[in-house]
Parts: sequence; structure tokens; C-alpha cells
Amino acid sequence: MEKQVTIYDLARALNLSTATISRALDDSPLVKPKTREKIRAMADKMGYRQNLIASNLRKQQSRTIGVLLHEVNSYFSTSVLAGIEKITTREKYDILIAHSGEDGEREIANTRNLFNKRVDGLIVSLAMSTVATDHFNPFFEQGIPVVFFDRVAKKMPCNKIVIDNFKAGYEATTHLLQQGYRRIAHITASLQRNVYEDRFRGYKKALTDHHIRFDPLLVESCSLNREDTLAVMHQLLKQKPDAFFITNDFAAAVCMDELQRSGIRIPEDIGMMGFNNDILGSLINPRLSTIDYPGTRMGETAAQMLIDKIKTKKNGKATAEHKSVIISSTLLIRESSVKKARQRRGHK
Amino acid sequence: MEKQVTIYDLARALNLSTATISRALDDSPLVKPKTREKIRAMADKMGYRQNLIASNLRKQQSRTIGVLLHEVNSYFSTSVLAGIEKITTREKYDILIAHSGEDGEREIANTRNLFNKRVDGLIVSLAMSTVATDHFNPFFEQGIPVVFFDRVAKKMPCNKIVIDNFKAGYEATTHLLQQGYRRIAHITASLQRNVYEDRFRGYKKALTDHHIRFDPLLVESCSLNREDTLAVMHQLLKQKPDAFFITNDFAAAVCMDELQRSGIRIPEDIGMMGFNNDILGSLINPRLSTIDYPGTRMGETAAQMLIDKIKTKKNGKATAEHKSVIISSTLLIRESSVKKARQRRGHK
Repeated sequence: MEKQVTIYDLARALNLSTATISRALDDSPLVKPKTREKIRAMADKMGYRQNLIASNLRKQQSRTIGVLLHEVNSYFSTSVLAGIEKITTREKYDILIAHSGEDGEREIANTRNLFNKRVDGLIVSLAMSTVATDHFNPFFEQGIPVVFFDRVAKKMPCNKIVIDNFKAGYEATTHLLQQGYRRIAHITASLQRNVYEDRFRGYKKALTDHHIRFDPLLVESCSLNREDTLAVMHQLLKQKPDAFFITNDFAAAVCMDELQRSGIRIPEDIGMMGFNNDILGSLINPRLSTIDYPGTRMGETAAQMLIDKIKTKKNGKATAEHKSVIISSTLLIRESSVKKARQRRGHK
Repeated sequence: MEKQVTIYDLARALNLSTATISRALDDSPLVKPKTREKIRAMADKMGYRQNLIASNLRKQQSRTIGVLLHEVNSYFSTSVLAGIEKITTREKYDILIAHSGEDGEREIANTRNLFNKRVDGLIVSLAMSTVATDHFNPFFEQGIPVVFFDRVAKKMPCNKIVIDNFKAGYEATTHLLQQGYRRIAHITASLQRNVYEDRFRGYKKALTDHHIRFDPLLVESCSLNREDTLAVMHQLLKQKPDAFFITNDFAAAVCMDELQRSGIRIPEDIGMMGFNNDILGSLINPRLSTIDYPGTRMGETAAQMLIDKIKTKKNGKATAEHKSVIISSTLLIRESSVKKARQRRGHK
């Protein structure tokens, strides 16, 4: 077995004290930048692996933030990551991403792994199938800051960054009603997740406010992947909806495509509303109306909140105080839901 | 500062030996599953953080694989991740993802961070702006297995998994030529990256084989993001191309949308060929012809190759033998490039 390179080896090779080597590797300002660079280069050359635990125990820092995502394949997730990275780069933190692929079991394994990798803090959006949140307890108990964004643990006292999903659902539905649509079908995901529950409540409230009876047969939850979405869409078509409010742009685009291929005109025959403002929605015809969800700002806010919590730790523990931030979202009216304008222009 | 929980604390709390605790936390089969579970639960409850370095030094394993991606926002990347996760889950490895966002500097920082986190191996696709590959030397020198996929270091002796990008570029161009297109513009990314260089060589060879003179004014490289792609597309339009071969479906969809909005018919006036088989291409009208790039299989193959390298380490080092695997890709002819069929059907 290869012998591990130690700071003693580096000290010998560079004819410097081990204290200097150690300080340099910790980026201490006590060591001149040029010397730090020289030491860093030699460390790389000799294959030195920093003894992070020793270093952590001393400083209680790994300068690494864990990011636990429910999925990565969306414009929203990438925007959030971009926002997080903007802040972490400026504040000199590395980030490590783990993603659950919507699987609660994998989320638990990833949480444990990031805990063992001694991240300084965690930014999380819950997986679709996560039920309990006990797997975050080790972080809470050790006073390691955790910030939830988007899919948050509703009943847990913790740091949260969300949009007003109730308002977004209300506005999307109200817009469809104002366009004259009356039987608005709602395709969404697990109502166990705050974001979908709140949008659904907004949808129902808008119906009530417009004196439309809520029909549970017009609501379906699914994974929002292509196959499942098409299956529930066909199910819902039996209820003769004249519009769809779908809580995900990709799923809305899939439905739009399927409807158009069977000769249904959008927005004339059926109106369509998505959610998230994925780039995809601006590349399909008609352009998809949606809710602009500011992922980058959400990521920036989450990262800044987390780093502030890390910096203000007392006795090695984050303060117990919890903040909630609501980022504003915007209704984005494009072509897929604007029945009235199209009619006025005579089906142009 | 909070006292760290040790295996002694766990042993005391559960009235078990430290050896049993230690074995259980290392998932040793010597400890009954039920006992392992009990110990694991108590470790979680007490906030025990596994002393990974001690455990690693003993076993030289962290059972964590690092995945270094150039970006995450594509169907291709997510497919690769899904393939990697299928294998790592089965083989009981955790994965940690770092992504460079196409930035070579960030790739270097991520590589160092994953090295310090003592991953057992690394799966990498190079960032667009990466020039040198010295940052991987610590891995090579310590005998930690590294597998490159897609964007590989061409001249480096290492484990690689690629598709035949030359053949794919050749087939895409040949198909356009067979459809009667003659001035085929090529929008691609940095020719420093093997994938783009090989596709470009395939494009040129197809032209030569069909006695079409290669015109350098018909080729542009850019980041392939929306803005840059549109800028080079407008540049190329001055050369009066009758088709575009674009090495990324998203960029191709952006161009198609822009061309159609200015009244250009696809495929009648201009043919369009993408690359990757992103879901997006099947949601736009006309459907985008493309190269089906089997990301999931590439991810599975990369993970399996890496784990095999980890398992066959000798004296703590990976064997020096390097494998190259070529995964087959397929030309997927859809509507955006099929001029002849459309003409026969009379512009249906």
C-alpha cells in the first residue's frame, strides 16, 4: 500500500516548517500568497491529501456545502444551482451535489453521506416520496445549518425559501377563468409536498371566488414524467375539460403536443397553463403561458442564508432562530392560454 | 464546542462492544442485519459522524464515487447520471456530483475538493474551457481510478468511454446530402474538445465523399447557449446555407424557432439536424432529426468500469492498464431534415 504523503514530507521537500505548511494549506493569511502557492503546487505534485478531519476538528469547517436536490434535469434546478454557485464561489465554498431522483430512500442515503463528509451546511429540496424528515436530525442536533428551498418540510421549524405557491396557483387559475375557460383540469404531483398542495389550494380558491364548483374528477396527481402525464391527461379528457393547469412546463408541453397531434387546437379548444418558466415553453408553438419561478434568486438567497448561518455559529452551533423568505413569482401570459385575443384576431 | 460522539459512546449506550459497533458501521456481514440497524439508528440519534479517515486508512475506501460533470442541464447529463446511479446503487456506492458549468477553473477546484474528500474513484467529462489536465495527476499518482466519458482527454492514456463522434458527424451530414441539401452550415462548440473535433471531421469527410467543397465560412463554434447560437446562426445565414447541422438539440431547437418565426420553412427551405436526442426534439414542430446518444448506457458503462478498477486494485493502486469503450450511437431521422418525403407529399 502506498504511504500517504504528510505535511512532514512537504516540509522536508520545501525546507519549510510544518506550521507554515499547515497554515498555507488552510489558506491562512499569515503565509504569503507566493509561499502558499508554492506549497499548494508541491502538495499537488506529491499527491498530498489534506487530513480534513484533523483540519476540521481544529476549525470545525470543511468549507464545503452540500446541496441535496430532488432532481437535476430541469431549467429550474440548474437555475437554482447557478444561483448557489454564484454565492459560494464569491464566499470561497466548494459545493457537493447529491440528488435523490425523487426517491426518498436515496435522499436518506445522500443525507447521511453528506453528513459523514462533514459539510458545513446543507441546502435541500425534498424528494417527491420523502415522508419523514428524521434523516436531517443529525444536522439539527449538531447545530449544522440546513436551509430548505422550494420543497420544504412544512411543519418543521427550519430555514425556508419558497415562492407563494398558493398565490401562483390562484393567479394561474384566475387567468384561465378570465379567458372564459370553465372546466379547468389540474395535473399536479404529490399533494404531500407543500408546493403542490399550495398550488392546488390556490386553484380551488380561484374556482370558488368565480362561483365555479370544484370537481375532484378534474384533478390528478402523478410523477409528471412523460408517460404518467399522458396517462392522466387521457383520463381527464373523459371529463371534457376546456383547459389544463399543469404544475410543470415539461408535462404541459408533452400534453400540448399530444393534444395538437389529435387535432385539438390550443388555445382555441383547450387552454394550457404550465409552471416554472422552463426555456422549453418559449420554443414550442403556441408559446406556453406559465409562472415565472425565479430559480437563480432562490439559489442565491438559500446560499447566502446558509453562509450567514455558518458565519454566526455560536459555540460551534448554528443559532436556533429560523427564517422564512418568500421570493416573488410572476404570472407569464403567452399564447397557450389567451383564447380571447386569438378570437378577436380571428384565429390568426 | 459540542463534544464529538464516538463509537465508545455508542457502545456504552447500546451495551455492545466497540468492535461490534465499528463492524456494524462498516456494514460488515459479521454483524446481524437487525443489530446493524439498531446501531445505525442509535448512531443517527446520537449524531455520530463516522470517522471516515480512520475507516478509510483501514480499508482505503470511502465507498463514494465522485462525478465531475461539465453541466447538468441536459437530458444527456441526466441520462448519464441515471446510468451511473443504477450501477452505484447496486454496488452500494454513494456518489457526489460536482459540476464545472463549463468552467475549467471550477473543474480544477472541484477535482481538488473530491480528491480531498477521498473518493474511491472519479468519473469525468471535461469542461469546455479545460486546457491542461494536470489537475487529475494526484489521482493518477495515488492510483485512484479515473474514467473519462464523452469529453475525454484525447492524448492522455486513461479509461475512456465515447461514442464514435466521427461516424455520427459523417452520418448526419451524409443524410442531409442525400436529402438534396448542398450548403450545410455547421454550428458546434470548441474544437479543442474531442467530441466536437471528431464530429467536425465527420462533417468534412462526408462533404468530400460527396464532392462538395468544404467552405470554412459555413462553420462556427460557440458556447451553444441560446444567445451565442442565435448570433452565429445569423452570421451563417449570410452564407445562404440550405441546412444546419448543429451539435446540440437545444441549440438546434432555438435556431429552428427563430427561422420559423421569420417565415423560413423547415425542412422545405432549410433542413435541420441536431445531436443528442434530447426529449425537447420530440416536442417541437417539425420533429428534430438528431443523433441518438445513449447516455444511460454510457453512465452504466463508466460506473461499471470504474468499480471494476476499484475492485482490482493491487497494493492500493489501480492497475495501469487502460480501456477504451465505444458505445454505438444511431442516426434518428425525423421531420426536420426530410425534404424529399415532404415534397412528395406536397408540403402537407
